[in-house]
Amino acid sequence: MPRLEFWYEFASNYSYLSVMRISDLARQAGVEVIWKPFLLGPIFKAQGWDTSPFNLYPAKGRYMIRDMQRISESRGLPFVMPPTFPANGLKAARLALIGADEGWIEPFTKAIFEAEFGRGEDIAQPAVLEKALAGLGLDAASLMARAEDPVIKQRLKDQTAEAQSRGIFGAPSFITEDGELFWGDDRLEQALAWAARSKEK
Amino acid sequence: MPRLEFWYEFASNYSYLSVMRISDLARQAGVEVIWKPFLLGPIFKAQGWDTSPFNLYPAKGRYMIRDMQRISESRGLPFVMPPTFPANGLKAARLALIGADEGWIEPFTKAIFEAEFGRGEDIAQPAVLEKALAGLGLDAASLMARAEDPVIKQRLKDQTAEAQSRGIFGAPSFITEDGELFWGDDRLEQALAWAARSKEK
Repeated sequence: MPRLEFWYEFASNYSYLSVMRISDLARQAGVEVIWKPFLLGPIFKAQGWDTSPFNLYPAKGRYMIRDMQRISESRGLPFVMPPTFPANGLKAARLALIGADEGWIEPFTKAIFEAEFGRGEDIAQPAVLEKALAGLGLDAASLMARAEDPVIKQRLKDQTAEAQSRGIFGAPSFITEDGELFWGDDRLEQALAWAARSKEK
Repeated sequence: MPRLEFWYEFASNYSYLSVMRISDLARQAGVEVIWKPFLLGPIFKAQGWDTSPFNLYPAKGRYMIRDMQRISESRGLPFVMPPTFPANGLKAARLALIGADEGWIEPFTKAIFEAEFGRGEDIAQPAVLEKALAGLGLDAASLMARAEDPVIKQRLKDQTAEAQSRGIFGAPSFITEDGELFWGDDRLEQALAWAARSKEK
């Protein structure tokens, strides 16, 4: 089965849109999704930004909220901007890396994004993360401790460096097995079609 | 018939994509297009940018070219990046305002974008503009002179100020009669559907 890497950042609102639909669309396209959380912060910093462009450029930020409202409504998705934007998604991303090893990264990621952009919760709060873990029947206390492991911390740094070295500058991004990069939830269908087609060759 | 304002900048590559398809899509949707050229330069400058974000952020710029290639190919459109990007589209925009009064703004705009992004020509060159005008059976020499009229210059400034005051921060942008703003060629279908729907209410 062809594979598509799904690069996302836990603080990214447009990542929410893809998180909530990529599994269904990938199944229809016959494509396997590889979930790749990373941090946009270091990549933005390298571009001279100390926060989201939606904060740096207010007209763009206002538009983004309206765009999110319209798209969420058309897809029957709840949408609530969290009180702190962008949220600190560091710990969520570290937990997700453990989930990638153990097979629960997809439901964990969905639970976090539903909390963040579906209900407007602050995903930097341990209680929000613990609730998501417990909701999956996982041992939240143990996993919260393991997320502080230097090996996990380093893996997130490495994955972020990999994103940057492969040309990623925003989220969500998608990379096919033949190296095509697609950026934005509005390119998801195109990325899946490319992934399915490139494997046929 | 419901109307949709189409705000575009002559140097904008993504405006090219919309220029080449908006008339057909609008006809299908039963929507009238109001062609509104403006300048992104002053709006970018207000955000602290002295050139296109595709130049300021190289990873984004490289991605944009590949994105344009893929989309153009899928639509059967030629795509050649012009030697100078962003081009100086000041004179083209002034001419387009005359064309808005005289009924030839649509074919003129298409001819300019075909030269710029279909063949990679520099639309700051008077010869390119004159050829486009002559190709429409217009008096190129007379129009090139009229484009220097202070009244026309002021109208372009006013139209650019209007774009900014209405929340536009990039091109192409679309505004419906009930004031909804959509940004990007990838929102064109959504903007047309909104325009058609809002009129029904």
